[in-house]
Amino acid sequence: MSGSDPLPGEFSLIARHFRPLAGPGALGLGDDAAVFAPPPGREMVVTADAMVAGVHFLPGDPPDLVARKLLRVNLSDLAAMGADPLGYVLTLSAPRETPDSWFAGFAAGLAEDQARFAIALLGGDTTSTPGPLSLSVTALGTVAPGAALHRRGAEAGMEIWVSGTIGDAALGLAALRGLLPDPGGELAARYRLPSPRLGLALAAIAAAALDVSDGLVQDLGHLCRAGGVGAEIEAAAVPASPAARAAGPEWLPTRLTGGDDYELLLALPPANAAALRALAAATGVPFARIGHFTAGPAHVAVRDGAGREMVLDKPGWSHFP
Amino acid sequence: MSGSDPLPGEFSLIARHFRPLAGPGALGLGDDAAVFAPPPGREMVVTADAMVAGVHFLPGDPPDLVARKLLRVNLSDLAAMGADPLGYVLTLSAPRETPDSWFAGFAAGLAEDQARFAIALLGGDTTSTPGPLSLSVTALGTVAPGAALHRRGAEAGMEIWVSGTIGDAALGLAALRGLLPDPGGELAARYRLPSPRLGLALAAIAAAALDVSDGLVQDLGHLCRAGGVGAEIEAAAVPASPAARAAGPEWLPTRLTGGDDYELLLALPPANAAALRALAAATGVPFARIGHFTAGPAHVAVRDGAGREMVLDKPGWSHFP
Repeated sequence: MSGSDPLPGEFSLIARHFRPLAGPGALGLGDDAAVFAPPPGREMVVTADAMVAGVHFLPGDPPDLVARKLLRVNLSDLAAMGADPLGYVLTLSAPRETPDSWFAGFAAGLAEDQARFAIALLGGDTTSTPGPLSLSVTALGTVAPGAALHRRGAEAGMEIWVSGTIGDAALGLAALRGLLPDPGGELAARYRLPSPRLGLALAAIAAAALDVSDGLVQDLGHLCRAGGVGAEIEAAAVPASPAARAAGPEWLPTRLTGGDDYELLLALPPANAAALRALAAATGVPFARIGHFTAGPAHVAVRDGAGREMVLDKPGWSHFP
Repeated sequence: MSGSDPLPGEFSLIARHFRPLAGPGALGLGDDAAVFAPPPGREMVVTADAMVAGVHFLPGDPPDLVARKLLRVNLSDLAAMGADPLGYVLTLSAPRETPDSWFAGFAAGLAEDQARFAIALLGGDTTSTPGPLSLSVTALGTVAPGAALHRRGAEAGMEIWVSGTIGDAALGLAALRGLLPDPGGELAARYRLPSPRLGLALAAIAAAALDVSDGLVQDLGHLCRAGGVGAEIEAAAVPASPAARAAGPEWLPTRLTGGDDYELLLALPPANAAALRALAAATGVPFARIGHFTAGPAHVAVRDGAGREMVLDKPGWSHFP
């Protein structure tokens, strides 16, 4: 409208890049908050993850892949709870000199995965920072009452199963740092773009679950502590992709303790193995049995081909010492 | 348990400082996400704000006040929608060398305001960063169906009202930077600790509302753009605290355009002025009439004591040019 005051830069940026992503309830991102009616008869599930340039992704990573990874690590948490995604809220703290093209690429990545996973942006906040790009997403989902999967529930004698392959992302980070060849780029692709295991009907099959994000051995330790049990896994049973196998056996400890897999780790009553195999066949998501839970203490033992317990420097990634 | 694997540092930190803050549904912060049943018959309201050291607070600010400001800026967004707070999710990206005492102080601040506002922590993420401390909170609230306040709704002829006093926080930041005396510390206190205007039954009284966070003139511009109207306010009518008044008239532009007030700005049909005055008397929250909306364009005119339009360098804070 002629004579109107110009929109301040921050809000012009939001209108240009993020308003097209706004879903029902987001009020066009032009209000103080989003308002929506929760789906009747469902429980709400909420999770949040932060990502920082130089910690969770490389500063030069393509902005659309950064956006999609940010969404997907949160969707993976919903998957680990057996929840269906509903929407998300985004905070983005960027250096003031961030070019408009970076925001455009970032928004394009969000748009692509919003369509893929049938979710929409509900709201958020865009600020400047004197430091590295810092992002957070809070993802909202729903689950049938009482049907959420939990970390607690593993019992001695239950089997340990994992989806997909383990270690590709950690090897991909090593490859992006020049420590490892990755001729086909599959390893780097796994580091940059996880695949959340949504939509698997695991509530009646698994006794406990989580998503492997900080390293298989460490995350298995969470299931052990929550259940008051120990775990034994066979290193050779941990599924590896052809690219990871090609890296050679010296990368085995990295595969077992590196982060960013975003696969599901399950505690399975042995009687449910057939049901899981049927689910895997029906959905095309591979699952592999890698070991079993034992009577406590909450210790994870990794056996090599000779049955000896492997000594690992650390079980996984920790942000703080 | 003897023989158990040690909890990695990150999770030990979370268990020590944040688990005591976890509410129902948070599953002790030991799961991938929180699960809760939404209150029946209510709509959900969700909002997020990020805060970065050196941008939204000063790096040396006491950690309990940083925590409480982070919660309160989000609660203020819920207040602006007329919503009641339910819970919140936190992401915290901190330098690895952040001392444990900082986390303890931060958690103590959260605990204090959780009790004050009857909310609990639902979940979140704690990561390291090579940059400044970066925080985000996503706040969840509820509102009766259709009762949310919106920014859209101002019409020509409606009155403009604001709660509390305006400009104290911006002057407080100036005082903390040594640009202004603040002998009683009231101004700095307003910068460090806003008071969200929760619990006011404004849905039937105000036609539009927002919380003033980026500067009165700029935020009034949001109400103007959303309603397709202009606004005229009298500078002398904008309520000032005694401490702000003592700063002198040269600080008037800062008061009108500085951020961090977290007061409510309302569009009020003139017939509802008596109801607002009654609400103010009943709750003890002062409201003042500062001007009125005009036929468009969406321009905010600030009149000085002689009726002349004041020229302001910028209407408020914008993170991006």
